[in-house]
Amino acid sequence: MELKLLKQKDVTAHLQSQLSHLYLQLNSDLKQLSLATILEVPENLDVVTCFEDDVLIGIAMMANYKVVSGHKGMIEDVVVSQDHRGKGMGRALMELLLECAMERKLNDVLLFSGHHRTAAIALYKSLGFTLKNSGLYVKKME
Amino acid sequence: MELKLLKQKDVTAHLQSQLSHLYLQLNSDLKQLSLATILEVPENLDVVTCFEDDVLIGIAMMANYKVVSGHKGMIEDVVVSQDHRGKGMGRALMELLLECAMERKLNDVLLFSGHHRTAAIALYKSLGFTLKNSGLYVKKME
Repeated sequence: MELKLLKQKDVTAHLQSQLSHLYLQLNSDLKQLSLATILEVPENLDVVTCFEDDVLIGIAMMANYKVVSGHKGMIEDVVVSQDHRGKGMGRALMELLLECAMERKLNDVLLFSGHHRTAAIALYKSLGFTLKNSGLYVKKME
Repeated sequence: MELKLLKQKDVTAHLQSQLSHLYLQLNSDLKQLSLATILEVPENLDVVTCFEDDVLIGIAMMANYKVVSGHKGMIEDVVVSQDHRGKGMGRALMELLLECAMERKLNDVLLFSGHHRTAAIALYKSLGFTLKNSGLYVKKME
């Protein structure tokens, strides 16, 4: 298992194809943005990946932004291949993102998780995340 | 009442002082980032303000970021001065942010709101936001 912070120069058509396939496990309806697009401004995003025998088996990312209430990280699009769950890969990816958060001197790291995702929630809590008494509201713009 | 999309060149010490004061109403413990800091990269943030007789009475902002699941806007730090609530200012600020979202061609706009904030939630729903079945988890990094 190889953990890696992804850089623009690492993006290949082969990796993009593996990533597109992996995200189908998360949401098959999702219209995905490409790695090249999201890594255009490296200061705004950390992408962490996990490979086994050169196959992408896990990925997670953290966008960061500045508003009056702080410099915040938003963790999004965490996915581990179905065949490789329960091996601590989600934790390893999250820990690497939290290292990035420390390096960027973020004030807060945020994420949202479906209430039914008990295994993921247990992981987040064990890493020091706490549930806020807030609802997430979304408006689709398309 | 004057609505305005704030630009870097509009930031003055006087405005910063008014803004710091206004945010004390939202959270008196908050260590605030300055307008100059958050507007450093204008592509990443829209800040909308509302003035009455040159006094800042409302503000809201939307950071935008790109991840695999889309180009998203995150609305944060919405505050209307206590003396000026119930006049539609929150709606006007939100509508202006949604225009920014259209211009930026965002896929989704997100926001979090405390479950007890019934007036704000009614406003968000009337603007087309829907509550997701997800919890918000936060880790303080300091």
